[in-house]
Amino acid sequence: MDGLDYLFKPESVAIIGASREPRKFGHVILSNFVKRFRGKVYPINPNAKELMNLKSYSSVLDVPDEIDFAVIVIPAEYVENALLECGKKGVKAVVIIPGGFSEVGENEREERLTEIARKYGMRLIGPNCIGIFDTYSHVDTMFSPMYKQDRPFKGRISFISQSGAYGTAIMDKAAAENMGISKFISIGNRADVDEIEMIKYLGNDKNTGVIVLYLEGTKNGRELFNALREVSVKKPIVAMKGGKTFEGSRATLSHTASLAGPSEIFKGMFRQSGVLLAENSEELFDFARALAYLNLPRGDRIQIVTNAGGFGVISADEIVENKLSMAKLSKNTIDRIRKILPSYAVVGNPIDLVGDADSHRYEKVLRYVMKDKGVDAVFVVMLLQLSALESDVVDVLISISSEFEDKPLVVCTTGGEFTQVHTRMMEKVSIPTYPTPERGIRAMKALIDYSRYRGMIRD
Amino acid sequence: MDGLDYLFKPESVAIIGASREPRKFGHVILSNFVKRFRGKVYPINPNAKELMNLKSYSSVLDVPDEIDFAVIVIPAEYVENALLECGKKGVKAVVIIPGGFSEVGENEREERLTEIARKYGMRLIGPNCIGIFDTYSHVDTMFSPMYKQDRPFKGRISFISQSGAYGTAIMDKAAAENMGISKFISIGNRADVDEIEMIKYLGNDKNTGVIVLYLEGTKNGRELFNALREVSVKKPIVAMKGGKTFEGSRATLSHTASLAGPSEIFKGMFRQSGVLLAENSEELFDFARALAYLNLPRGDRIQIVTNAGGFGVISADEIVENKLSMAKLSKNTIDRIRKILPSYAVVGNPIDLVGDADSHRYEKVLRYVMKDKGVDAVFVVMLLQLSALESDVVDVLISISSEFEDKPLVVCTTGGEFTQVHTRMMEKVSIPTYPTPERGIRAMKALIDYSRYRGMIRD
Repeated sequence: MDGLDYLFKPESVAIIGASREPRKFGHVILSNFVKRFRGKVYPINPNAKELMNLKSYSSVLDVPDEIDFAVIVIPAEYVENALLECGKKGVKAVVIIPGGFSEVGENEREERLTEIARKYGMRLIGPNCIGIFDTYSHVDTMFSPMYKQDRPFKGRISFISQSGAYGTAIMDKAAAENMGISKFISIGNRADVDEIEMIKYLGNDKNTGVIVLYLEGTKNGRELFNALREVSVKKPIVAMKGGKTFEGSRATLSHTASLAGPSEIFKGMFRQSGVLLAENSEELFDFARALAYLNLPRGDRIQIVTNAGGFGVISADEIVENKLSMAKLSKNTIDRIRKILPSYAVVGNPIDLVGDADSHRYEKVLRYVMKDKGVDAVFVVMLLQLSALESDVVDVLISISSEFEDKPLVVCTTGGEFTQVHTRMMEKVSIPTYPTPERGIRAMKALIDYSRYRGMIRD
Repeated sequence: MDGLDYLFKPESVAIIGASREPRKFGHVILSNFVKRFRGKVYPINPNAKELMNLKSYSSVLDVPDEIDFAVIVIPAEYVENALLECGKKGVKAVVIIPGGFSEVGENEREERLTEIARKYGMRLIGPNCIGIFDTYSHVDTMFSPMYKQDRPFKGRISFISQSGAYGTAIMDKAAAENMGISKFISIGNRADVDEIEMIKYLGNDKNTGVIVLYLEGTKNGRELFNALREVSVKKPIVAMKGGKTFEGSRATLSHTASLAGPSEIFKGMFRQSGVLLAENSEELFDFARALAYLNLPRGDRIQIVTNAGGFGVISADEIVENKLSMAKLSKNTIDRIRKILPSYAVVGNPIDLVGDADSHRYEKVLRYVMKDKGVDAVFVVMLLQLSALESDVVDVLISISSEFEDKPLVVCTTGGEFTQVHTRMMEKVSIPTYPTPERGIRAMKALIDYSRYRGMIRD
C-alpha cells in the first residue's frame, strides 16, 4: 500500500482524544469507527480505562499492536506531542482535526507538524479539517453526531473540499437524497497532503468515478493544472472556485489560510484541463450525479418527452440557450409514435404525452425515441401529480435506461412528498433526477461537454 | 361582488361532470369541494342520483337554488351545451377544464364559448386549464388526487400560470415545504379572462402580497405592460417567460395556443414595469418567498453571519457578483462582538462564528449586527449538522426577525432530514430559507431591487 492508502483503508485506527461525552468530537469519531469500521479501534485517552467497551490507552505508544491510522482530536497545543508519538509508534497516516494553526497565524506551529510527518514518513491530512469519510472502508472522522447528520451509501462520487462544514452538509444531503458517495476528503490547511496529491490519488482509485472539487486557492497552480489535465482524461472532474471576488477571496484567508487566486486564472485552468466548471454550489453535485450514473453520449441531440407542456417549453428553451441541439425524429419514428398517442398529443420536440399519460405510454414512446438514430440523449419530464401516472413508471425508466445505456436518460420531476419518494427511488437506481428543467438540462450539458472533451463526440 | 369574485369566493358551486370513479377528474374536483368548501355543492351528472351523499342533478337547470360558480369537466364536444345551460341558469363564473379547443385548432368551438359567456355575462376561465385554487375560500378545481398532490396552507403568494401542470406541481411542492399560497390560477386558452385582467384583480386582492407569473405569450402586449406597471407599484410581481427561444416558442403554440413573443421584448417590458425577472423556474418562488415574508430593506448592505467558512466565502462572492454591497460593521460593533466570540472566530464580513457556535452565540451576534447602522439586511448561514447548534436557533431567528423587522433576515442551510425539518419550521414562521448561498443571495437581490423600484432605497 502507498502512504495515502492508509488514510482510506487502514486495518487499525487510534482515536487520540477519544471521549465518553456525547457532544465531544472525540466521542463522535470513536463511535463512528466502533459502529461500522471492520478493523481494530484503539481509543487514546489518559483519563479513561475503557470507552465504548474498548480498552483505552494513555498514548499510542502503549498500544501493543501496530496502528495504521490515527485521528488526532485534542486542542492545538497538544497536537505536536501526539503526532510525535504517532511517528515513534510507526503510524502510517494521520488526520489532525483541530484548528489553531496557520489559519490564525500560527504558521510555525503548523510547520512543526509538517516536519514531524516528513521525518517519520507519515502522511498527514489537516490540521483544521474534518478529515476523511469513505463509504467502502467506513473510515469516518466526521464529527457531527450521526443523529444530526446521516451518512450516504456507496457510490462513485468523491468530493475533495477545502471547506469542511460544506462537505459535511453535502454528505448529509447525499444520504437523504440517495446520492452514492465514494470518499469525502476535507483537506483543511494542507500541512502535508494537498488537493493536488489527492486528485492524483483519486484518479487511480477504482471506487471513484467522478471527482468533485471545492477549492478556494492553491499553493502551486502549475502542478494543480498538470494533475487536473492528467486525471481528467481518465475520469470527469467537476470544480467550483470559492473566493471568486475580492471580498470572497479575503474571507478565504481566515478560513483555510489560503489566499484565493484570481477567478479568471482558475477558470482558464479548469477549461484548458478539461474540468467541468460549476457555476454554483448546486451545480457541483447536479453535474456529478449525471456523470457518475450515465454513460457518455455520442452527440448532443436531445429529445424531450413530457407530460406537462410548460416544462416542455422551458426544457426546449434551456437546450437552445445552452447551445445543445434539439433532436429531430425521423418521419418513421413520428408516424409510429402518432399511432400510439391520442390525437391531441403533440409529436415533435418536445413530445407532449399530455396530462393523462400513464407509464405504458411513456414506455412505448421512449422505446421508439431511443431507437431513433437522430437522438443522442433523452430528457424525460414526468409530473407525478397527474392522476394517470403510477409508480411503475420507475420500472419503465429503469428498463429503458439499461436497454439503451449508450443514450443517457435524465429525469425532471417536481413536487411534494409523493414526488420526493419517487425521486429518491430513481436516484437509488442511478437515474439522475432534477427538480427543474433548467438544472436537468445543465447537467446534460456537463455530460455532453465531457463526452466531447474525451473525443466521443465529433462536431 | 365583481364578476371575478365569483371565481374565488362563490357561495354555491356546481360540478358538471361529477363522477364516482376515483380517477376521473370530475370525482377529484367534487371531492375537493365536499371536503373543504363551506358553501353549497351540486354534483351534475345525468347518470347518478347521489354522489358523495349529495343529490345529483341532470343539469344545472334542475338545481332549485342559485349557483354562483360552475366547473365544467366533461369532453369538449358537450361543453358548449353545458355552458349554455349555465348561462340560462344565471351562473356567474365558470371554469372549463377540458382541452380540445384552440390548442388543437378548434378555434370556432372556442369562440362559441366566448360568445355564450359574453351573452349571459358569465366570467370564464379556460378552456384547457386546471382552473382555480384558493386557500382562503377552498375553491379547488385541481384534479390531481389529494393523495398524490398536497394542498398548501394560507399565505400571500398568488400564482398565475399559463401552464397548468407546472402550477399543480408547484402547489404540491409548496405544501411539502410550508410555502404559504393565496391563489393559483391556471388560465389555459384564455377564451374570456386573461392574464391581464387577472393581474389587475390580484393587484386589489387583500389576500395577495406577491404575484408570480409564468407566461408564454400574450395577446395584448400594451395592455399587459400597463397592467404590470399599475400593479407593481402596489405589490411585487415576479415573472418568468416560457418560450424564450425559437424552439421553446414553437412548443408553446401547441401547448396553450399562444405564439410566444420575442424574449427580449418581454424582458424589456418586465424591466420597465418594475417586474422582477426570474432567470429560471426555481427563482420564481425563491424570489416570491422573500418578497412575501419580509419587509423591504432601506439599503443593499448585507452582513453575512455563518458557522461554516466555505459558505461564508461563497455568500460573499455572490453578494459582489450580484452588485450588492457588503456591509461594513462599525468599530464599536466589532469590538462588542469580539468580546463574546472565541479568539479563533473571525469578525468581519462574513462573521465566521466557527463550527462550535450554538444558538446563544447566534443570538448575541445577530443582535449587535441588527443594531449596526451600516447593516440593511442579514444573511444567516447555519449548518445544522454541527454538534453545538440546537433547534432553539429557530426561536432565536424568530425573535431577531420580529424585533428588527425592517432589516430582512434570510437563512441558508443545507443537508438531510434534520436540516429539512428545520427548513420547514422556518418557512412556517415566514423566515425564507434557501439550500445554497447563491439562491439565498439572489432572493435578497430581488427584495432589494423591488425596494429600490418602490423608492425605499436611494443610491
